[in-house]
Amino acid sequence: MTPYRISFAGAGRVAGTLCQELCEKGHKIVQIASREGENGTSLVKTCYAEWIDNLNFNIPCDIIIVAVPDNALKEVLTGIKCADDTTVVHTAGSYGLEIFPDVIRKKGVFYPLQTFSKGRKIDFSNVPVFLEASDNEVMELLKSIAYTITTSVYESDTDKRRMLHLAAVFACNFSNHMFTLAKHICLKTCYDFDVLKPLIKETVNKALEYTPEASQTGPAVRNDTETIKKHLELLSFSQEMKKIYIELTDSITELYRIK
Amino acid sequence: MTPYRISFAGAGRVAGTLCQELCEKGHKIVQIASREGENGTSLVKTCYAEWIDNLNFNIPCDIIIVAVPDNALKEVLTGIKCADDTTVVHTAGSYGLEIFPDVIRKKGVFYPLQTFSKGRKIDFSNVPVFLEASDNEVMELLKSIAYTITTSVYESDTDKRRMLHLAAVFACNFSNHMFTLAKHICLKTCYDFDVLKPLIKETVNKALEYTPEASQTGPAVRNDTETIKKHLELLSFSQEMKKIYIELTDSITELYRIK
Repeated sequence: MTPYRISFAGAGRVAGTLCQELCEKGHKIVQIASREGENGTSLVKTCYAEWIDNLNFNIPCDIIIVAVPDNALKEVLTGIKCADDTTVVHTAGSYGLEIFPDVIRKKGVFYPLQTFSKGRKIDFSNVPVFLEASDNEVMELLKSIAYTITTSVYESDTDKRRMLHLAAVFACNFSNHMFTLAKHICLKTCYDFDVLKPLIKETVNKALEYTPEASQTGPAVRNDTETIKKHLELLSFSQEMKKIYIELTDSITELYRIK
Repeated sequence: MTPYRISFAGAGRVAGTLCQELCEKGHKIVQIASREGENGTSLVKTCYAEWIDNLNFNIPCDIIIVAVPDNALKEVLTGIKCADDTTVVHTAGSYGLEIFPDVIRKKGVFYPLQTFSKGRKIDFSNVPVFLEASDNEVMELLKSIAYTITTSVYESDTDKRRMLHLAAVFACNFSNHMFTLAKHICLKTCYDFDVLKPLIKETVNKALEYTPEASQTGPAVRNDTETIKKHLELLSFSQEMKKIYIELTDSITELYRIK
């Protein structure tokens, strides 16, 4: 493995997880630029890096990974000062190379398809990383780095990556919200969220081992209108959840009717 | 453990899984009543039971477990012929004791909160089972049987069980449908559903280890209107999925705004 000199802009969830992973795999973390002192200072300690509170990357490095909130991305990229031969990449699913200022010549995207939470260690070994690059040399650098943390590396253009990001919203954010709503309903009985955990585990195991389509159960897929009617009555405490129930039931019914 | 003599009405997913589990735990499966020859005959072989194609349970048993589709439940319960001292229970989340005909004196509900698929073995050891009974003696019998397959046994009235069943629809059926929709979007790129699997695993691990509320990520919870706008444009291929996206994004935004 070639160890690279890697700097970071950002010290949030994505930057923190990625930075620690790359550090553990033997890369040299050079500088971490971050406004928020706490995240940044704790990260530089773990990764033996230097903390800077501006975007002036004045110590030479091979690559700067910019992992900041989407709405700050353009501003941060524009503010970066670094050597001409330094590659700069961002980690956003929804943006491509067009967001970089022209002065950055060597640029790319390093998008890990995963959900990150602060302080939570991820098993990176099979997390897919989708790469885009301004030229072959940058692509080779990105691949070389990506393969040190995962076996699952893909070249991807912006359109595909955007679509994957959208898929991830359904697979992760929306499914997780279903768990939240289920918990909310569960707490209306005297039972704890724990009673739903074996069900959630089995739901996911089944969807991943078979396919989600083949695993679908419940009143909607068996067109059990009596139960659906009863459920809608039970949901009278929340018009919003009732709307969601109707929408998703229609969507399931429609899907399995066509098939 | 007291081995009981147990008969089944139904040989579908719930009946099949439960029947095999009870058989493996040392209970005697007596008769299995089922119209569909194939499920029933294969189940009687595995469980050394007798198959009957009617509801005349003419061999003495302690309990008959009725696990049939909800829309057939009333008819099946009404058709059952058995000894007066035999307990009859159903496994439906949405029905209580009111669905039994008056002639059945000893009755109850044995509701395992889990998703069942044909031929799929479940780890029953911590699957919660919710029990309701017409009298104490029946409740003791149900508990005694339930504790042979799981450590998680609860007494529950019909109202609570109905609410749990509704919670299960969100936790299982709707979350699984999110995986199906995500897969659908994913296949619009050249990538396989496999690229979403590490994300789905981590989503669930996180929700179960922390809480789903604390684990929520994505554009909705961080109120990233730019990304949401882009996603809605990408969803122009499906008005239905667009509606679901809007509904769930509103629901997430609302939840985390209030908190």
